[in-house]
Amino acid sequence: MSSVASRSPAKSQKPYFVGIDVGGTNIKIGLVDDAGQTLGYHTIPTEQDRGAEDACRRMAEVVGNLIAESGVDFADVVRVGLATPGPMDIPSGMILCPGNLPGWWNFPIRERAAHHLQLPVTFNNDANAAAYGEYWKGAGAQFHSMVLLTLGTGIGGGIIIGDLLIEGAHSCGSECGHILVDPRRDDAPRDTLGKTGSLEAYACATGVVARTEAALEAGTKSLLAEKPATGKEITPRIVAEAAERGDELARQVVMDTAFWLAIGIVSLVHTIDPDAVVLGGAMTFGGAASPLGRDFLQRIRDEVRPRLLEPLRDKLQIEFATLQGDAGYIGAAGLARLDSRR
Amino acid sequence: MSSVASRSPAKSQKPYFVGIDVGGTNIKIGLVDDAGQTLGYHTIPTEQDRGAEDACRRMAEVVGNLIAESGVDFADVVRVGLATPGPMDIPSGMILCPGNLPGWWNFPIRERAAHHLQLPVTFNNDANAAAYGEYWKGAGAQFHSMVLLTLGTGIGGGIIIGDLLIEGAHSCGSECGHILVDPRRDDAPRDTLGKTGSLEAYACATGVVARTEAALEAGTKSLLAEKPATGKEITPRIVAEAAERGDELARQVVMDTAFWLAIGIVSLVHTIDPDAVVLGGAMTFGGAASPLGRDFLQRIRDEVRPRLLEPLRDKLQIEFATLQGDAGYIGAAGLARLDSRR
Repeated sequence: MSSVASRSPAKSQKPYFVGIDVGGTNIKIGLVDDAGQTLGYHTIPTEQDRGAEDACRRMAEVVGNLIAESGVDFADVVRVGLATPGPMDIPSGMILCPGNLPGWWNFPIRERAAHHLQLPVTFNNDANAAAYGEYWKGAGAQFHSMVLLTLGTGIGGGIIIGDLLIEGAHSCGSECGHILVDPRRDDAPRDTLGKTGSLEAYACATGVVARTEAALEAGTKSLLAEKPATGKEITPRIVAEAAERGDELARQVVMDTAFWLAIGIVSLVHTIDPDAVVLGGAMTFGGAASPLGRDFLQRIRDEVRPRLLEPLRDKLQIEFATLQGDAGYIGAAGLARLDSRR
Repeated sequence: MSSVASRSPAKSQKPYFVGIDVGGTNIKIGLVDDAGQTLGYHTIPTEQDRGAEDACRRMAEVVGNLIAESGVDFADVVRVGLATPGPMDIPSGMILCPGNLPGWWNFPIRERAAHHLQLPVTFNNDANAAAYGEYWKGAGAQFHSMVLLTLGTGIGGGIIIGDLLIEGAHSCGSECGHILVDPRRDDAPRDTLGKTGSLEAYACATGVVARTEAALEAGTKSLLAEKPATGKEITPRIVAEAAERGDELARQVVMDTAFWLAIGIVSLVHTIDPDAVVLGGAMTFGGAASPLGRDFLQRIRDEVRPRLLEPLRDKLQIEFATLQGDAGYIGAAGLARLDSRR
């Protein structure tokens, strides 16, 4: 039920913070010091059907164990950062109606988590927390401002300018997946909310699979055309593998994904003008570790650059995220740290 | 050479600020109190060919006269806000290469203005200053966060969240005219920088004229088809007049402009999630005072709403600006006020 991985930095810096990143499958819980070093973390299954109150109770139990195992003084743990999937109401600390947590709708999670944890809780969106994690300790650490796009089943976004996280007036700030990149086509693919023309509809896992299937149905030759014989469903991983083996159709799908991301990034950059755009999540085609991932990133840069205002062309950085799945809890802890200093 | 309009609020509040809004044709200079009331203002011609140093000297002269005429104590005027067209480098106080001020390129205007004015100077982009003006004293006064789109020859943008103005890492924040709304058409209209697919290419004055001319060339019937006989060039005002007289083509051009603005606004709103989007500038087809302007605004709202994330649909406000040409100097003064409190 729980996995433990302890990292002991040579010297930890007081005070300490807990970061909790709630996903549809797992909840990651980390104990983080004032410098952003992880002293230890646990992962527990979300078991969303047991309800949010039960999850808050289990989180509190894990946090107690983590603190005890790490050897830090309970009194030096000053605040908890809690990140959950949206939609949510950040100011009131409410989970509203996240698609992957149907049993948790309309739950006052900040207050209930604080009750069980007996610590003040800073509440935010999981994509925002991941962005703050990358900004604090990951790919964005040397920048003053940064946009994170988390590419997965959907597209999450987080925007940081200095210490300001763009949460939005209605907790819908940084919802960058809903930037429109192709508003005119009536037959354009649909995003996770059934809307057409959004960045998410083109660059998330579902979009990649849909474009691959459409090309196969149109009769384009591909290694993937053998799919029905092997009985495998098309997934982004299967597309990536085919692209790595030189399959033209698969490679075109990957590069089209880069194109659409580039269009969204151009709109984002002319709005925010950040130091950097950072790309994370499972849908980066292997990321920096893979030749395909590196080609994907280069194509994004090549498509973005000529579309930018001249002063930005040689300055904007576009990079892969570095914290991967840890960004969420580290960022949640970082946001708790920010609040504790206000 | 100069026009004076004094408004005497019953009670003015110390300290005082000067706001200066530099345009290609005129420079507006206002003396503003701590509550954002204008105590008096002058407009002088820019005469850009005389150079930026000369303009700084003339601004200082006008400011001296304004203060003297208003009867406030010189010592109570604590800071000047100076807004100019971009491109610029805000942190270093440099004008870079604005198209409408060719004789002013690469001029350290903040430092030179401060020298002549003998006051500290807060420097910013004219569109950002206008946004802050509307936010402080205009259509945005009741909101915590606001985006202003200034529709004119080009499209200027300004984004305010709390007291944060999104200037950007390279002084290109809030360049909302360069959001991409139609990235795929190779024959799409070009914006003021010659790029295609941007919001500006569709919704600025040039875009409106270009779309009207294209429709006329394609043989669409219109009152405007008589243009060659009357010898008048097509302008947005002529399009608006024809639309008001019931001309189908002209009305379609206006409503298409609303559509493209809506697309850009949807992308903006899913990035920033502001309380309100405010539309100002000459290209609002008469604005709130005109039936056509009100139809234009309603069409924008109708096109935006179904494309928004559900929590935003009934909450986002889209309104016309109210300060018109005064927004720039009032906002510049407001930004100076912010700086004086830091």
